[in-house]
Amino acid sequence: MNTRIIRKNWIFTLFIFGLACQAPEAQKEVKSDEPKLPSWNEGENKNAILDFVEKTTTVGSSDFVPEKDRIAVFDNDGCLWSEQPFYFQLAYAIDYVKKEAPNHPEWNDSPVLKSAIDGDINGILSKGEHGIIEVVMASHTGMTAEEFSQNVKDWLATAKHPETGMAYNQMIYQPMVELLSYLRANGFKTFIVSGGGIDFLRVWAEEAYGIPPYQVIGSSIKAQYEEVDGKKAIVKTPELNFIDDKEGKPVGIHQHIGMRPIIAAGNSDGDYQMLEYTTQGSGPRLGILIHHTDSEREFAYDSLSPIGNLKKGLIDGPSLGWVIVDMAKDWSQVYPK
Amino acid sequence: MNTRIIRKNWIFTLFIFGLACQAPEAQKEVKSDEPKLPSWNEGENKNAILDFVEKTTTVGSSDFVPEKDRIAVFDNDGCLWSEQPFYFQLAYAIDYVKKEAPNHPEWNDSPVLKSAIDGDINGILSKGEHGIIEVVMASHTGMTAEEFSQNVKDWLATAKHPETGMAYNQMIYQPMVELLSYLRANGFKTFIVSGGGIDFLRVWAEEAYGIPPYQVIGSSIKAQYEEVDGKKAIVKTPELNFIDDKEGKPVGIHQHIGMRPIIAAGNSDGDYQMLEYTTQGSGPRLGILIHHTDSEREFAYDSLSPIGNLKKGLIDGPSLGWVIVDMAKDWSQVYPK
Repeated sequence: MNTRIIRKNWIFTLFIFGLACQAPEAQKEVKSDEPKLPSWNEGENKNAILDFVEKTTTVGSSDFVPEKDRIAVFDNDGCLWSEQPFYFQLAYAIDYVKKEAPNHPEWNDSPVLKSAIDGDINGILSKGEHGIIEVVMASHTGMTAEEFSQNVKDWLATAKHPETGMAYNQMIYQPMVELLSYLRANGFKTFIVSGGGIDFLRVWAEEAYGIPPYQVIGSSIKAQYEEVDGKKAIVKTPELNFIDDKEGKPVGIHQHIGMRPIIAAGNSDGDYQMLEYTTQGSGPRLGILIHHTDSEREFAYDSLSPIGNLKKGLIDGPSLGWVIVDMAKDWSQVYPK
Repeated sequence: MNTRIIRKNWIFTLFIFGLACQAPEAQKEVKSDEPKLPSWNEGENKNAILDFVEKTTTVGSSDFVPEKDRIAVFDNDGCLWSEQPFYFQLAYAIDYVKKEAPNHPEWNDSPVLKSAIDGDINGILSKGEHGIIEVVMASHTGMTAEEFSQNVKDWLATAKHPETGMAYNQMIYQPMVELLSYLRANGFKTFIVSGGGIDFLRVWAEEAYGIPPYQVIGSSIKAQYEEVDGKKAIVKTPELNFIDDKEGKPVGIHQHIGMRPIIAAGNSDGDYQMLEYTTQGSGPRLGILIHHTDSEREFAYDSLSPIGNLKKGLIDGPSLGWVIVDMAKDWSQVYPK
C-alpha cells in the first residue's frame, strides 16, 4: 500500500459524491390542477392526510422531511385490499390443496388437509393457528420460488371471491391506491408491511399498487439455495422464518428498511405496534387506521371479528393523534371502477 | 356486501392503473457527452460492462430488460471498499470493546474480549468464527438500533486505517462508485449484498455509495421491539439471525429483493453462489469478480488470503463468462481523489 495516494481533500470530495448519489430517484411533483385523492370525500381525515404531505414536503416548512427519510408503510389485508370472510391467501392455500390432492393421497390422513380438500374452512380454523400453518406449508413449500409465483399468478387469473364474484386482486381499495400514488409523487417510498406471506404478495403487488417486490415485507418461511433440474434455484422449505405481525412489524421494518417510517397505515390491532413505532419517532408523524364501517359496499367489522380484529387501536388511536378513517363516510368509492 | 358494485371493466381499469403505478421512479439517461466510468481504463472488461448496459437498456434490442427487472447486487468488503488487513467492521468491534471496557470489568474474564481490549487481533482470530462472533456480540448488541448507528457514525468520524491512515469510509473504490452511479442512471436498482452486518453498513452506505438503507442486505442479529426510556425502540439482541454469505447470499437476495438479479459483482468465493444464481437466470446476465492485483495502490491477494479468499471463482469464472476485473490493470484510480 502506497501512502502517496492519501489525499487531504476527502471531506469535500465525499460531500460532492454524497450530493451526486443521494437522490437517485427523482420524483415529479403532482400538478396542482389535478384533483388530489379523488375517491376520498372532503372532510377532516382527507385534510389531515393532505396537510401532512404538504407540510413535510414544503421546503422551508418547520416540518419539512428530506426525501430520503420519507418512508411510508402499509399493512395489506384489510388496509389495501379486502380480507373477509377470511384472508385471501388462505383461499389460495385451500384451492391449491384441493387441486393438488390427487397427487398427494397422504393428505387425506391429515384432518386439517382433509378439511381443505372438502372446502371445510371451519374444519381448518377450528385447529387455530396450527391449522392455518399446516395448509400453508402444504401449499407454499417443497417447490422453487419461481414455481410458487407461477402458481399464485395462475390462481389469481381464475379464482373468484365467494361473495362478490370478483377476482381477488380486483378487491383492492381505490382510495388507498390513490394515496400510495400521491405519496410516491411527493417523494415518499411506499412499502407493504403485512402479516401475509411476503412471496405471495410480491407476485401481484407491483401491478395492483405500484409497489415493487423489494418494497414488500411480510411473514416468511425459510428458503434454501439448491440445484433443481440442473439449475440453481431458491426452494421454499416447510419451516417458519418470520411472523410479521404485532411486535413483529417494527422488527420486520427494522430488518428490511432500517429506518423508522414517518407514515404508517393499518386496520387491525396487528398493526398497533407498527403505528406506535412510527408515530413515536421525533418530528412529524402520521398514523392511519382504516375502520371497516361499510356493510353496503364492503364489510363492517372491528372488535368482534376473528379476522382483522380492531379494538385497542380504536380506543387509543384518537388520543395518539391517529387518523381513524371511516370507510363508509370517508371514501366515495371502495374498489376501482 | 352489495353486488351492485361489481363492474365488468376491471381488466381495462387495472391495466391503466398498472401503467400509472409501475414506474414510480423515473431515471434520467446519462448524457452521451459525459465520459462513462472515467476511472476504468479502456479495454475488454470496461467494454463488457458498457456493452451489457447498452444492450439491456436499448429499446428494441433483443436483450432489452424492462426497468423493473434491472436489479444489480454488489458485495461490499473487497468489492466496494477495502477489507485488508481485516474486515473494517471487526476494527469497529475491537475499538468499541476497548473504549467500553472500563464499563465492563467482566470482559477481562473472556480470553477473546481480553485480546480485543489489548488490541491483539491474532488472539481473536485464533478462536476462529467464535472469536469474531464474541467480539461482535459485545459491540453490537444490548443497545437500541439508534444507539448502535450513532456509535458507528462517531467511530467513522475519527477512526483511521492502520496502514493508510485514511478514514475507513474513504477507502471506497472510485471505479465501483462510478459503476453504481452509471447503473442507476440507466434504470438499475443497486443493492448491497454483504457478509458484513446489515446495520453497520446502513449507517454510511447512502453517503458513500448512494445506496439507501432499504437496499442494503447483510448478515444480521435478532432484534426485539421493546420499551426503552419510556419510548418504544428496536433493541439488538445477542443472537444470530442470518449469515449472508455463500449459499446465504442467494437466500438473502430472495428474502429481501424477491427477484433474481441480472448483474452481480463480488470479489471472493463467498460471492460465488450470488454470481452463480444471478448468471444462471435466463436472458442477459452479467457476473463481475474484482481480483485484487494491486499491491501498489491497494492490496494484492486471492487464493491464499484468509480475508476475501478467491480461488474457485478465478478457476470457474472465465468459462462461466464472468468478467474478472484486474484491479491493477483495469482501474486508473482506486480511491476517490
